[in-house]
Amino acid sequence: MKTLIKNGKIITNSDSFEADILIENEQIVVIGKNLTPDIDTKIVDASGKYIFPGMVDEHTHIESPFGGTVTAPWQTESVAAAIGGTTTVVDFALQTKGESLMEGINRWKSRAEEQSAIDYGFHIAVTDLRKDTIDEIPKIVAEGVPTLKVFMAYKSDLMVDDQTLYQSLEAAKNVGALVLVHAENGAVIDLLQRKCLENGETAPYYHAVSRPIEVETEATARAIAIAEIVGAPLFIVHVSGEEPAQKIREAKAKGLPIYAETCPHYLFLTVDELKKPYFEGAKYVCSPPLREAKHQEALWNALQDGTLQAIGSDHCAFNFSGQKDLGREDFTKIPNGGNGIEHRFTLLYTQAVTTGKMSLNKLVDLLSTTPAKVNGLFPKKGTIAIGSDADLVLFDPNGKKTISYQTSHQGLDYDMYEGFELEGAISDVFLRGTQIVKGEKYVGKLGEGKFQKRTPYGLC
Amino acid sequence: MKTLIKNGKIITNSDSFEADILIENEQIVVIGKNLTPDIDTKIVDASGKYIFPGMVDEHTHIESPFGGTVTAPWQTESVAAAIGGTTTVVDFALQTKGESLMEGINRWKSRAEEQSAIDYGFHIAVTDLRKDTIDEIPKIVAEGVPTLKVFMAYKSDLMVDDQTLYQSLEAAKNVGALVLVHAENGAVIDLLQRKCLENGETAPYYHAVSRPIEVETEATARAIAIAEIVGAPLFIVHVSGEEPAQKIREAKAKGLPIYAETCPHYLFLTVDELKKPYFEGAKYVCSPPLREAKHQEALWNALQDGTLQAIGSDHCAFNFSGQKDLGREDFTKIPNGGNGIEHRFTLLYTQAVTTGKMSLNKLVDLLSTTPAKVNGLFPKKGTIAIGSDADLVLFDPNGKKTISYQTSHQGLDYDMYEGFELEGAISDVFLRGTQIVKGEKYVGKLGEGKFQKRTPYGLC
Amino acid sequence: MKTLIKNGKIITNSDSFEADILIENEQIVVIGKNLTPDIDTKIVDASGKYIFPGMVDEHTHIESPFGGTVTAPWQTESVAAAIGGTTTVVDFALQTKGESLMEGINRWKSRAEEQSAIDYGFHIAVTDLRKDTIDEIPKIVAEGVPTLKVFMAYKSDLMVDDQTLYQSLEAAKNVGALVLVHAENGAVIDLLQRKCLENGETAPYYHAVSRPIEVETEATARAIAIAEIVGAPLFIVHVSGEEPAQKIREAKAKGLPIYAETCPHYLFLTVDELKKPYFEGAKYVCSPPLREAKHQEALWNALQDGTLQAIGSDHCAFNFSGQKDLGREDFTKIPNGGNGIEHRFTLLYTQAVTTGKMSLNKLVDLLSTTPAKVNGLFPKKGTIAIGSDADLVLFDPNGKKTISYQTSHQGLDYDMYEGFELEGAISDVFLRGTQIVKGEKYVGKLGEGKFQKRTPYGLC
Amino acid sequence: MKTLIKNGKIITNSDSFEADILIENEQIVVIGKNLTPDIDTKIVDASGKYIFPGMVDEHTHIESPFGGTVTAPWQTESVAAAIGGTTTVVDFALQTKGESLMEGINRWKSRAEEQSAIDYGFHIAVTDLRKDTIDEIPKIVAEGVPTLKVFMAYKSDLMVDDQTLYQSLEAAKNVGALVLVHAENGAVIDLLQRKCLENGETAPYYHAVSRPIEVETEATARAIAIAEIVGAPLFIVHVSGEEPAQKIREAKAKGLPIYAETCPHYLFLTVDELKKPYFEGAKYVCSPPLREAKHQEALWNALQDGTLQAIGSDHCAFNFSGQKDLGREDFTKIPNGGNGIEHRFTLLYTQAVTTGKMSLNKLVDLLSTTPAKVNGLFPKKGTIAIGSDADLVLFDPNGKKTISYQTSHQGLDYDMYEGFELEGAISDVFLRGTQIVKGEKYVGKLGEGKFQKRTPYGLC
Ligand SMILES: [Zn+2]
Ligand SMILES: [Zn+2]
Ligand SMILES: [Zn+2]
Ligand SMILES: [Zn+2]
Ligand SMILES: [Zn+2]
Ligand SMILES: [Zn+2]
Ligand SMILES: [Zn+2]
Ligand SMILES: [Zn+2]
Repeated sequence: MKTLIKNGKIITNSDSFEADILIENEQIVVIGKNLTPDIDTKIVDASGKYIFPGMVDEHTHIESPFGGTVTAPWQTESVAAAIGGTTTVVDFALQTKGESLMEGINRWKSRAEEQSAIDYGFHIAVTDLRKDTIDEIPKIVAEGVPTLKVFMAYKSDLMVDDQTLYQSLEAAKNVGALVLVHAENGAVIDLLQRKCLENGETAPYYHAVSRPIEVETEATARAIAIAEIVGAPLFIVHVSGEEPAQKIREAKAKGLPIYAETCPHYLFLTVDELKKPYFEGAKYVCSPPLREAKHQEALWNALQDGTLQAIGSDHCAFNFSGQKDLGREDFTKIPNGGNGIEHRFTLLYTQAVTTGKMSLNKLVDLLSTTPAKVNGLFPKKGTIAIGSDADLVLFDPNGKKTISYQTSHQGLDYDMYEGFELEGAISDVFLRGTQIVKGEKYVGKLGEGKFQKRTPYGLC
Repeated sequence: MKTLIKNGKIITNSDSFEADILIENEQIVVIGKNLTPDIDTKIVDASGKYIFPGMVDEHTHIESPFGGTVTAPWQTESVAAAIGGTTTVVDFALQTKGESLMEGINRWKSRAEEQSAIDYGFHIAVTDLRKDTIDEIPKIVAEGVPTLKVFMAYKSDLMVDDQTLYQSLEAAKNVGALVLVHAENGAVIDLLQRKCLENGETAPYYHAVSRPIEVETEATARAIAIAEIVGAPLFIVHVSGEEPAQKIREAKAKGLPIYAETCPHYLFLTVDELKKPYFEGAKYVCSPPLREAKHQEALWNALQDGTLQAIGSDHCAFNFSGQKDLGREDFTKIPNGGNGIEHRFTLLYTQAVTTGKMSLNKLVDLLSTTPAKVNGLFPKKGTIAIGSDADLVLFDPNGKKTISYQTSHQGLDYDMYEGFELEGAISDVFLRGTQIVKGEKYVGKLGEGKFQKRTPYGLC
Repeated sequence: MKTLIKNGKIITNSDSFEADILIENEQIVVIGKNLTPDIDTKIVDASGKYIFPGMVDEHTHIESPFGGTVTAPWQTESVAAAIGGTTTVVDFALQTKGESLMEGINRWKSRAEEQSAIDYGFHIAVTDLRKDTIDEIPKIVAEGVPTLKVFMAYKSDLMVDDQTLYQSLEAAKNVGALVLVHAENGAVIDLLQRKCLENGETAPYYHAVSRPIEVETEATARAIAIAEIVGAPLFIVHVSGEEPAQKIREAKAKGLPIYAETCPHYLFLTVDELKKPYFEGAKYVCSPPLREAKHQEALWNALQDGTLQAIGSDHCAFNFSGQKDLGREDFTKIPNGGNGIEHRFTLLYTQAVTTGKMSLNKLVDLLSTTPAKVNGLFPKKGTIAIGSDADLVLFDPNGKKTISYQTSHQGLDYDMYEGFELEGAISDVFLRGTQIVKGEKYVGKLGEGKFQKRTPYGLC
Repeated sequence: MKTLIKNGKIITNSDSFEADILIENEQIVVIGKNLTPDIDTKIVDASGKYIFPGMVDEHTHIESPFGGTVTAPWQTESVAAAIGGTTTVVDFALQTKGESLMEGINRWKSRAEEQSAIDYGFHIAVTDLRKDTIDEIPKIVAEGVPTLKVFMAYKSDLMVDDQTLYQSLEAAKNVGALVLVHAENGAVIDLLQRKCLENGETAPYYHAVSRPIEVETEATARAIAIAEIVGAPLFIVHVSGEEPAQKIREAKAKGLPIYAETCPHYLFLTVDELKKPYFEGAKYVCSPPLREAKHQEALWNALQDGTLQAIGSDHCAFNFSGQKDLGREDFTKIPNGGNGIEHRFTLLYTQAVTTGKMSLNKLVDLLSTTPAKVNGLFPKKGTIAIGSDADLVLFDPNGKKTISYQTSHQGLDYDMYEGFELEGAISDVFLRGTQIVKGEKYVGKLGEGKFQKRTPYGLC
């Protein structure tokens, strides 16, 4: 069966034009003026609407363990993503000590296969880099997992040392894979946390105090230096402020292949949220922590000048009740993370496009095209072009909405953006030609999302 | 009549995919797999070829006076452009003292109307900013000329003072127009030139000695500072080296809307060319001058990280015999300029794409899409999309050629790139659906190029 | 006659130690423990006191015309200086158009000879650089005036163009002289002033609005670039904030011989003073203007890391009544300048030394030693060493005082630092061995200050 | 007994003047013109000579174990220092694992007490930071050891982790002590060394290959970041090139109390020395390694603009035969270190002062005054002032000499500066008033050097 979407305004990362889109066999096959449907062609009217490529979220943590508890699962989070216009996520799978990388990936994959509403891939977080793990890297790349994750924070848990960072970069480079890094100096954070607790500073705000931007700046510079020595590309996740962004800018100016993202919460929220009374600050505990307001302008500038190339959600959903409140007496026990998988696109549209900060095309580039490219999903994902997957988002610029956890689809008892006004509304979402969202309702089937074998970007 | 180009690989600034292109009424109307032609549809087979959007050259000087002589005319240069894959130029028209801006534009326009093989627009160089000239700016923008040029060099000729620069930026800003600036400190150059001549240093090489990079860096920083005070965007033409590029990078990092280009000669030639014997160095006399080799890497990095957004030719063709040799006894009398309109695309393809320095998409972005956007030609020009002008370039990656002025189409008795090997060959060029180049031959009709009313980018 | 100062604590720019000082024939001849006086030796007891070298103020405007009015004269200002611990000033003499440099110097010298309480030299401000003026430069250097001043601001008055700046630097360099520059872009300021006035923005605060820090940053960078091209040293006066300081820092990092000062008002006052009601803001109108508070920390850092080497007063005293109020209807008519000659040392001691920002030695370096060195007064002035002039300041760290124009000795009807609390008090001042201040009273004789033939620092 | 040194030209870090110096009880008591000796006063004629304060070398390794061998002992090295004009060293003592800091200090002290020709102090290198070690820090400061050393290199030997660095800085800060850091990333070096060896790259040159400047830049930035978080001052030893120096410059510009030194070998030798045949490259194996020539200009600029404040020798003397050659089959087994204790002053005088790179005063500042200040030796050491120790160096600017290990006094069978021509000659050296060098001969008594209880600079 074919589908013809008529009269929409197509928006890619570069172009904006009115045309019809013909879909066949999950793919876009024709784009043009006044296309004539066959008799069996389903017609969708997109008049007055923007048509975007499905958004790609390169940074999510679904059904992921952290500090003895687990984030919300695929059945809710992948639906929330779909309703928010995201048709592909690259989720972070974790190797546990002793395990092979493939075991970590497979554990994640089996959950998604059953429940995911959207397409997905995995980064594999290396926590135990043995000789046989290094040897395994070409294999996982061949299996469609060309991105590794390394943590420089979370001492005595996920944190790796500089030798592991170096060796991950080297092994990745040899097969064209890309290393993503969480850049904070975990050794220093550990001392600062202990100091806070010794001083009786146990409230959520001390989460931020114990992770000053200097620990992020330092680790960012260190990761870049090591990547430079190895001669490998590097992707720095969740850049939170001015100084780390400046380190990345300086690296690019030297010609180094450094990529980086920021996240919506660093653009729209500040560290003051952590001071909210009644332990509500815990809802905003994520790492790196939220920063002072002045960093926001620096991040917008870094998005504008290309220092940052993507805006991933870092969606990592813990309920306030039963999860966040594990840290009521000790901020180091608050699970780290917030939400973003659902509202990422519309929030950005509202705050960046309607305010004139960036064009619609730039937004598509940051939320879909570049994440797809860097993560080896392009051109199947990330664009509206002949032969690409028909992952399409229809958007009514006249919609309006106020965010509330009560109407959100995430499996979460709060929302970091509670009360934020949204401009525009996603009306329809297609995944490989199949409509999965209609009028803000999920109309798909859990499990129809497919694992995406991704190709190594570094060898493109 | 319709034209259907079949089986080519379409390359835009973001996408690469195989599809057919259907053209009707000068525009692209359908892009898709296996399109079926009507009976009256002309078919072009593009198998094995890349299809690029027509290249846009935002920096040319055609039939332009300089130091008592005139550059080569539209009838040769526009044909050379077409054969080189460039379907639109934005040429620099000059206001002469006492004249209105419109008079300058019209003088240029009347020449192009008769003779141009390709589409064209004009920047108008402001040399005499009177009160009535300022008042004229909204008018010329309404006439489709939303870009002004200001020279900080060429003392006692084109050079303007800081007040004129300021006022041009301010007047432009008010109507969304963009100011382009030639950034070299003409006052200091004038002294350095006199000093060289006093010392008997009259050879072409002293052209470079009298224009050290510091005069460009200084003027670049000054133009940016003034634009920042005005709150206006600015486009810096022909950035030649590391330090000026760094000033631009720093400006962007502050969020300023600064745009900039470099030119092929700064990427491929060095100041050593000016030392060629028998006055041959004069062929390489352009401003800013060619630089030491180390600047080339800095320029490549600046293209890569987005500091520079375009590569214009600064084509400004003076014959060696009868023109360049006016300066045989005095380098200040050598007309400034070199060639580039014809080989810009293929040179860059050869030196940047086949060497892995950049992707084909990035190259399209630098030579077509971004110049079209910044200069208000987009989306008619600069992309392959539904509704865009059918300006298309078919390129055979297996072609090979050696540059020689004898086989070049420029009206020039030498070529700066004489002997350079080229990879790939442009086989066909379409201008608004009409084939104007076939098998490296011009098959169009002089005068069929059209003036493009451009829209102000600043108000987009 | 000899004088023996006993038991003080000598403070130089490097050392702090207790010793006696023996003075003979205007000079220091012995420093040591327990020196025994001859019978005819005058004894001064300095127990409990610091002994500093006489302060050197390299930046004053005494009896200087500006906008049709004249600053306060030598008979008051040199006494105020003496009481404040300054025993030498280098004042700015002005060449008027048509005049030779020597004529400007002589006009200034004749006034000082009659009335100055302290030693003095002159910088000569070049306003009319003719061929014969260039030729005169070696002569004035031979006469003991090895420092030129060039204004990049004050369009259609003192401002010179880039060629004059270049040629002044070149002529100075050839004889080891040093150019001092007032770095603000006068052309842009002129436009911004006109714009303010057109908008009816006539109040003192618009003085600051029309001279944003960008005009200072720009001119600073330009002056440095031109000095770099010439290969000459350069001294940048009255640096007012972060960005200009950063330009200087970057120049030094490249090995360029760039020197710079800031002034007390940039360290202690902010642009908010200009908003004072009843036209009181006019008292704080100086150029560059006072800045936002954040610049103060940047200036302290720049003093600390050696980016700035001196703190000159830029004393330029206009009464509020009859002078400052010339600009009541138009801020551009307010004479530019404020006071500082008297309180410079004690203010800095109070705000920088007692707060731990810098050591006493560093303060001596900034206010005496380095100004003496850069201006060719060293080692006669600027230190306490054998053979140096016995210019000495005895300072009681236990003194306390509140600044008020009523008790100040400047010829001024207001004080920019009115109400500032001072720690410590200057009890005695010696000029070449003669006591000229005793218990905060001037006990010298007007006219006993002597012209100092200074030597070119650049050839040291 | 008193000594009177007559008619020399005294050179301090700021002043240059002719005067006599009277010494009594080991100290300078009078400085003045034409001092009259008592009958029992010993007279020394210094006509035509410079008199400098005794040089202070803050960075030596005497009789220090490294990789199973030991550097040359006090009886030779302290004599070599004396002959070279150095009257005080601060040597690096090492804590061994399990030991207290005081035990390390005492081991070093007992050796020096018996054999040292000159005064001395110790930095204590922390290698095992236990809880009781932290508690010991106030005690060692009270004993006159206010400087700690931390190594970020030498993995599985001296290297400490970021937590130890942090805690050392914190403990030091609390008592005003200063941490010195060897900044190279030992984890990365370890991998690069293994890689070289695996590739059969065993020659001395691979020492440099395995320690690229990026590992130094990275560690420098990291140490600064951690010091910034702690709020502690930091001294970075042996800065070898441009990028690390730039990190220090940026830190100072932010107002951070960061101090740093470079060493003579980075100014005068390059990495090419390591390529010498017959394993001679091993003589130049030190860490950080010698760098490419371009770094030398950057270091001179960094000395000039105050980024670097001292030039320590990092004297660490291993014989070629029997020590350096332990690494004949494996560069990682070459003991790291070279010589410098003897020629430091005269080399710098020759290469920096006679060439016009810096003034004599600046040289005194870098080699004596600032090292004395930063290390808490001032004002006893580091200056010529009343009350200071009479450590004096008489220098004949007309001397000439060629360096050869055969005539050097170091206990070493080679000299890194073999064949270097020296200008000027040290003729006499006084240690606390006692002449210990006369006509380039040591005339003192081993063991007369005294341990210097140093005061914490941070609390000054
Ligand atoms: Zn993370
Ligand atoms: Zn995350
Ligand atoms: Zn130009
Ligand atoms: Zn041009
Ligand atoms: Zn001024
Ligand atoms: Zn002034
Ligand atoms: Zn070391
Ligand atoms: Zn060492």
